[in-house]
Amino acid sequence: MREACGVFGIYSFKDDSPFRDVYYGLFALQHRGQESAGIAVSNLEDVKVQKGMGLVNQVFNEQSINQLHGKIAIGHVRYSTTGSSNIENAQPILINSKYGPVALAHNGNLINTEDLRCELKERGLSFIGTSDSELIAALISTSDKSDIESAIIDMLNKIKGAYSLVILTKDSLIALRDPNGIRPLSIGKTENAYVFSSETCGFDIIGAHFIRDINNGELVIIKDNEMRSRIFSNDSREALCIFEFIYFARPDSIIHGRSLYESRVNMGKYLAKEHPVRADLVIPVPESGIPAAIGYADESGIPYGEGLIKNRYVGRTFIEPNQEMRSLGVRIKLNPIQDAVRGKKVIVVDDSIVRGTTSRQIVKLLKEAGASEVHMRVSSPKILNPCYYGIDTATRAELIAANLSLEGIAKYLDVDSLGYLSLNNLVKAVALPEKRFCLACFNDDYPVKVPEKMQSLKLFFK
Amino acid sequence: MREACGVFGIYSFKDDSPFRDVYYGLFALQHRGQESAGIAVSNLEDVKVQKGMGLVNQVFNEQSINQLHGKIAIGHVRYSTTGSSNIENAQPILINSKYGPVALAHNGNLINTEDLRCELKERGLSFIGTSDSELIAALISTSDKSDIESAIIDMLNKIKGAYSLVILTKDSLIALRDPNGIRPLSIGKTENAYVFSSETCGFDIIGAHFIRDINNGELVIIKDNEMRSRIFSNDSREALCIFEFIYFARPDSIIHGRSLYESRVNMGKYLAKEHPVRADLVIPVPESGIPAAIGYADESGIPYGEGLIKNRYVGRTFIEPNQEMRSLGVRIKLNPIQDAVRGKKVIVVDDSIVRGTTSRQIVKLLKEAGASEVHMRVSSPKILNPCYYGIDTATRAELIAANLSLEGIAKYLDVDSLGYLSLNNLVKAVALPEKRFCLACFNDDYPVKVPEKMQSLKLFFK
Amino acid sequence: MREACGVFGIYSFKDDSPFRDVYYGLFALQHRGQESAGIAVSNLEDVKVQKGMGLVNQVFNEQSINQLHGKIAIGHVRYSTTGSSNIENAQPILINSKYGPVALAHNGNLINTEDLRCELKERGLSFIGTSDSELIAALISTSDKSDIESAIIDMLNKIKGAYSLVILTKDSLIALRDPNGIRPLSIGKTENAYVFSSETCGFDIIGAHFIRDINNGELVIIKDNEMRSRIFSNDSREALCIFEFIYFARPDSIIHGRSLYESRVNMGKYLAKEHPVRADLVIPVPESGIPAAIGYADESGIPYGEGLIKNRYVGRTFIEPNQEMRSLGVRIKLNPIQDAVRGKKVIVVDDSIVRGTTSRQIVKLLKEAGASEVHMRVSSPKILNPCYYGIDTATRAELIAANLSLEGIAKYLDVDSLGYLSLNNLVKAVALPEKRFCLACFNDDYPVKVPEKMQSLKLFFK
Amino acid sequence: MREACGVFGIYSFKDDSPFRDVYYGLFALQHRGQESAGIAVSNLEDVKVQKGMGLVNQVFNEQSINQLHGKIAIGHVRYSTTGSSNIENAQPILINSKYGPVALAHNGNLINTEDLRCELKERGLSFIGTSDSELIAALISTSDKSDIESAIIDMLNKIKGAYSLVILTKDSLIALRDPNGIRPLSIGKTENAYVFSSETCGFDIIGAHFIRDINNGELVIIKDNEMRSRIFSNDSREALCIFEFIYFARPDSIIHGRSLYESRVNMGKYLAKEHPVRADLVIPVPESGIPAAIGYADESGIPYGEGLIKNRYVGRTFIEPNQEMRSLGVRIKLNPIQDAVRGKKVIVVDDSIVRGTTSRQIVKLLKEAGASEVHMRVSSPKILNPCYYGIDTATRAELIAANLSLEGIAKYLDVDSLGYLSLNNLVKAVALPEKRFCLACFNDDYPVKVPEKMQSLKLFFK
Repeated sequence: MREACGVFGIYSFKDDSPFRDVYYGLFALQHRGQESAGIAVSNLEDVKVQKGMGLVNQVFNEQSINQLHGKIAIGHVRYSTTGSSNIENAQPILINSKYGPVALAHNGNLINTEDLRCELKERGLSFIGTSDSELIAALISTSDKSDIESAIIDMLNKIKGAYSLVILTKDSLIALRDPNGIRPLSIGKTENAYVFSSETCGFDIIGAHFIRDINNGELVIIKDNEMRSRIFSNDSREALCIFEFIYFARPDSIIHGRSLYESRVNMGKYLAKEHPVRADLVIPVPESGIPAAIGYADESGIPYGEGLIKNRYVGRTFIEPNQEMRSLGVRIKLNPIQDAVRGKKVIVVDDSIVRGTTSRQIVKLLKEAGASEVHMRVSSPKILNPCYYGIDTATRAELIAANLSLEGIAKYLDVDSLGYLSLNNLVKAVALPEKRFCLACFNDDYPVKVPEKMQSLKLFFK
Repeated sequence: MREACGVFGIYSFKDDSPFRDVYYGLFALQHRGQESAGIAVSNLEDVKVQKGMGLVNQVFNEQSINQLHGKIAIGHVRYSTTGSSNIENAQPILINSKYGPVALAHNGNLINTEDLRCELKERGLSFIGTSDSELIAALISTSDKSDIESAIIDMLNKIKGAYSLVILTKDSLIALRDPNGIRPLSIGKTENAYVFSSETCGFDIIGAHFIRDINNGELVIIKDNEMRSRIFSNDSREALCIFEFIYFARPDSIIHGRSLYESRVNMGKYLAKEHPVRADLVIPVPESGIPAAIGYADESGIPYGEGLIKNRYVGRTFIEPNQEMRSLGVRIKLNPIQDAVRGKKVIVVDDSIVRGTTSRQIVKLLKEAGASEVHMRVSSPKILNPCYYGIDTATRAELIAANLSLEGIAKYLDVDSLGYLSLNNLVKAVALPEKRFCLACFNDDYPVKVPEKMQSLKLFFK
Repeated sequence: MREACGVFGIYSFKDDSPFRDVYYGLFALQHRGQESAGIAVSNLEDVKVQKGMGLVNQVFNEQSINQLHGKIAIGHVRYSTTGSSNIENAQPILINSKYGPVALAHNGNLINTEDLRCELKERGLSFIGTSDSELIAALISTSDKSDIESAIIDMLNKIKGAYSLVILTKDSLIALRDPNGIRPLSIGKTENAYVFSSETCGFDIIGAHFIRDINNGELVIIKDNEMRSRIFSNDSREALCIFEFIYFARPDSIIHGRSLYESRVNMGKYLAKEHPVRADLVIPVPESGIPAAIGYADESGIPYGEGLIKNRYVGRTFIEPNQEMRSLGVRIKLNPIQDAVRGKKVIVVDDSIVRGTTSRQIVKLLKEAGASEVHMRVSSPKILNPCYYGIDTATRAELIAANLSLEGIAKYLDVDSLGYLSLNNLVKAVALPEKRFCLACFNDDYPVKVPEKMQSLKLFFK
Repeated sequence: MREACGVFGIYSFKDDSPFRDVYYGLFALQHRGQESAGIAVSNLEDVKVQKGMGLVNQVFNEQSINQLHGKIAIGHVRYSTTGSSNIENAQPILINSKYGPVALAHNGNLINTEDLRCELKERGLSFIGTSDSELIAALISTSDKSDIESAIIDMLNKIKGAYSLVILTKDSLIALRDPNGIRPLSIGKTENAYVFSSETCGFDIIGAHFIRDINNGELVIIKDNEMRSRIFSNDSREALCIFEFIYFARPDSIIHGRSLYESRVNMGKYLAKEHPVRADLVIPVPESGIPAAIGYADESGIPYGEGLIKNRYVGRTFIEPNQEMRSLGVRIKLNPIQDAVRGKKVIVVDDSIVRGTTSRQIVKLLKEAGASEVHMRVSSPKILNPCYYGIDTATRAELIAANLSLEGIAKYLDVDSLGYLSLNNLVKAVALPEKRFCLACFNDDYPVKVPEKMQSLKLFFK
């Protein structure tokens, strides 16, 4: 399972050019996407954009500081499946429309793009890439409203799915979340500027303080140094993706007032209560399993330890391993600490299981390293349904939990016992009302109705 | 004065992938544009494009051969003024429209882009770059016709100015020239393929033979291995840019059955008849003045020689000279052969004079090298009017001949005598009817009416 | 404090080219150096090298596989101070000498280079870069011995300091450790090859099994598919750098039969016994402080948790923060989890303190995040003396513990209490005899006498 | 036949940093080598070098101006055969020796490198690349003299062959030519600096005036703002490579007071006298055959014209043509002007014939273009012997004139007649005493005895 994108926006009251702030903000959000990065800036006269493939510190250099001088800025980091990995899909996208220049950056996944794209093509529009952002920009520019704000509302009435957007015009900065608020987006403030960020860790790095989350169906606009809010949709329930709590967001971020770290530790504690087992050691699958493992250890009284070391230099441009190495599989990324697990009954905690392939290899690694028993504990429920709103997951056919019984999974993974956190306890761990979340991958209750044709597709979301 | 763009297209009957042919074709057309290069290819299923800044052999490498495998291909080399020099404007442009993927490459300059762009923006379209090609593509995709060919005709009814276009769809290749045929475009054939090229030198390099020029107002389409022709406009006179004969096209190319080289030699001969002078030596301003200087020498009986050596490695990324060097001016590109000109009466032949700045420096160089007399002869008439159809020339205020008398120019250039070829003799030298040419820069007779607002602009054409 | 270099070597019995193994081996050793990477390969006929600035997966690509085809190979990853950061100093170095081609890669730091360099210059040699490796290569090539092995012994009699070397000739692979064995180097084996690696994690990744550590003063040579050992020095005590145990080596590696991870957990346990304190939470400074923090928590019974999140994308080419951000300091790399520490008495465990600057900022971060008390615990003794054998440390004047009392340090760091692990307990934690280690930075007992002039230098080691 | 290298040196009296002058000087010498470029600079304290593969304007950028700030500088452009094309062999080479830093740049080819290299290896030196420069540097550093000047003399007593060298130390600039003066090197002066350049066109571009050529066996040293001369060898006859006059040097350069352009025009005139033929047109093989063709036309009274157009964008990184194109051969570089040659008796003038392959293809091109007769005239004698001093020529077995009679060559080339300039007339054309030249490739009289083993080698000179 991989991350979605990250967006960032800033509107400076003072003369300071906000480039550095966006740069560092994106750097803090880098875990949400490593494929491409981009920043668009307005100096109130015109709008410029720079984007490229790679990490934030590969795309920008000292020259960018001058080239992207301005007063308002947005930025984007992108995660993408290999298929559509190219510069045409990098964001922010910048267009020249009848409303003047408009730049936008998107985190999420629309579910009615095919229909919208067809309609627009029939109206005579054409597309250069395949990104949702280009489609969203086209929907704005084809509005018949006279002002950009109304044109954006027009567009919002057409698109369906998950979206947290930041939009830049020559003189304004707009941020909004879809009617269900599936992806997060927060408002912060420094002495000199208003700031938007997918996660609050983007505020911390530039010394901004958190003001509040944008609500589902809310659009916030900053213009002439003032911020206004507008509700564009209030007939939908909130449905924040629970996987932001389970896995996506950085543990030092805060969503809806809840610490990601604390929530995950709680998941581990409830997991220990639900699925206790006698063992010598609790270890995480690094890095995502760490807080839940800490929670499990704390609740169970079984010592916490490291059992697997992750190579922190794993990157994109990799020479393929040969046949012998491929059989070593996950070992390129993870190596067991033999002395830590040898002869021990080990509880290994991971945040989730999608296909089960990696988990199976991890169990094999631990047993080869001498673990006498391996008990797998998962700090989320069984994933039974695919996601259509922006997670790079799989078709139902590939989801191990959708196809095997608990015993079947345990056998496939070759574990001595297996336990998933219940949905009930997951929600308790986060300590927010269940109805505020999208839990569709667990309970099949999709907040936005998904077109039938989409359900049969092989899904690779971004 | 600098070159316009070059376009190339190929439709292969056989299984051979035409990539290499486009590559070499563009290489032969490289003199028409060095800023960016691009190739789009269809394998009948989908269309791919690769483009980049720089020369053909910098943009493509061995990997391109596999990435651009197909059956139909178009290519482009671009010259551009600095202002709009960026990858967004590189061609071919590729869009996904209701007609499927469409790629196109353009040589020329439209004169009603501003109005068209406004209209399209009002209809809801937006633009990423500033190139004519993106506009042309948008006009195709917004047609309400049911097939791509009719949509192209629709577009042709809207655009005004100079254009030679090659257009690629999934299964067809289209080439066409504007109603006046301002820019050249020819049809050739190999054993395996039909070929289009801005100049016939693009045929020679791949062993294709010339069939005929495309006519003004003619569209040629190849589909299902067959070529058809269609006249989309027949109410306009032909008006080929005479500067293709004076300067742009390579001397080994042939347009309208006339050898560029022979035409230029003839210009030199007529120039010798019109403006004879006693002298010891005829030298060209390399490289464009060579054929006319040869003609002048031949007609006058005065020996031909070299007097200025051009550094053939002059390129784009140049460290600025310091103050002392700047006073040396044109010497970085041109160096006089002192022993060849010292104590001699020298006739120096150039193809044209725009602002006069370079000519003045050349005269200074020759006098410092010891020439006792310098007689400037120009193988084209005085440039009195700006071009709006694709030459990077200047406003009227910058055109020296529009502002000074012959004596005034001679004095500014510090020459002992000065002679321009008459328009009458220029046409005789080319040996085609005068009415087949656009001679607007000499005689103010613009084949396409130019909007008034455009006439007042500072013009940088591409 | 930063890492030293990593070396790797492989001698294949079979026809398999060992390139991929070196590539992955270096990838596992990447934590020892990120500045440059290189691989040299012999196919028994000639030797080729490829090296470049950056990470292993930035320097090599698919083409390297063919270019570096062979039977024997060595590789290197380099850490360096900025001053000498350039391609001339990248390794392996490859020379053509009277013994034929010789490539070598070095981990460590010589202390008599200045004298040796002078002597060689007097003999007429010259140098292109400033690396120890170039000097070592020159000492080999200037030997008057008739064979390369004796020439290497000759060289070993001249150099002083810390060195673990792998050397490649046309038909042999040699590995050796200095008379004190200051840097580690181990022997491993796959079905097809002998392998040398700075750390055993380099064996795990390619499926090799560990055979033994090379001894101090031992040279191991593989030729004609056979391995021989030779003692070139046996009058010096073993003196392995204790910092390999404290910080350098990866926790999943094993040195002298001792697990790095277990040793570090033990350090934390002894630290808890020596410096107990009432508190709510034990947190590590990530990543190096994790095992000791786990040990501290386990021993003390105080819960273990995360309190600081490290941005895993911190890299080299960084846009400088502006003034406001600089005041945020370490926050770019580390961000506190407010909800985890707010209102709590926190024990923060780090592996060592050099200058104290970073520790001070971490304490400030935690207090601002609301920690009611911060107790710093350090899993190594006070660093009182500079290192001359390969650690990027500082002059004595910069070492905080060499200049302030315990109370002074605690005050500077603004902690509520401060405790260092005693030397005695450090050694107990590793569970190897004290005399097998170099502990000079703690106890001033340098295993190799350091020239006086060197002691007064500002030291930047690599 | 391809060019040798170019060297440049400058010593500034004033505070101006000479970087730009070297940059432009190398730019003027670019025709002598396009593989790599480099500049070394001393600011009297230390010496820095920057070098890279490619053209001068690809290797250096604005940053270089600051990085290479100083008072004394040397530069180099390199031509090389593919085999040894790599950055290790780029120049200037910079070493740190007992004499301090020494940088040097070399034009020429030594003939006793193998012996010298062996001797030095026996003494314990080793080599990183295969260039003569690295060897020359090693010979300097191994001298037992106490000062650098004497060490250079020492080195000069050992090396044999062709060399024009510029050498930079911390505080001096040295330039010298081998005892025979096989390669050119001249002294120039600006208001602010002394300048050395392989050709005088390097002076013209920076506004320096020519003072004199360095003599064979002369060393010129500039130190403390003063220039001294020293004869290090006076027992050898001068033997300037005649090919500098025939082909290498730029036509606007002057050597030994003789204009290259005038000399080549004279060669054409003598050629017309020696080998007259009735014809309609004299055309050059561009660009090297132009001046001789002008001379031939002038003398014979037959009109001069262009018949072949050379693509000026031919470069290094070229996609290989496919089979069909390969049969087109030289057409990628040269295209005939059909209308200029059709039905005509054409005299085609080239500067020399080495293997004959290209000439043969040119004749074929012209005949296919319709030339009724093709008469080949060569402005140099038959090349009968290989060159060992720096020209990229061929073994005797490959030299067409060494293996076929005049009739045989004419038949191979398929020309209607063939005429070579006689040695006697070549010398007359240059108008300098025959004994001042190396004419070995024509008359087997090698000024420096060539080792027998070298004579049997396949030679690729640089």
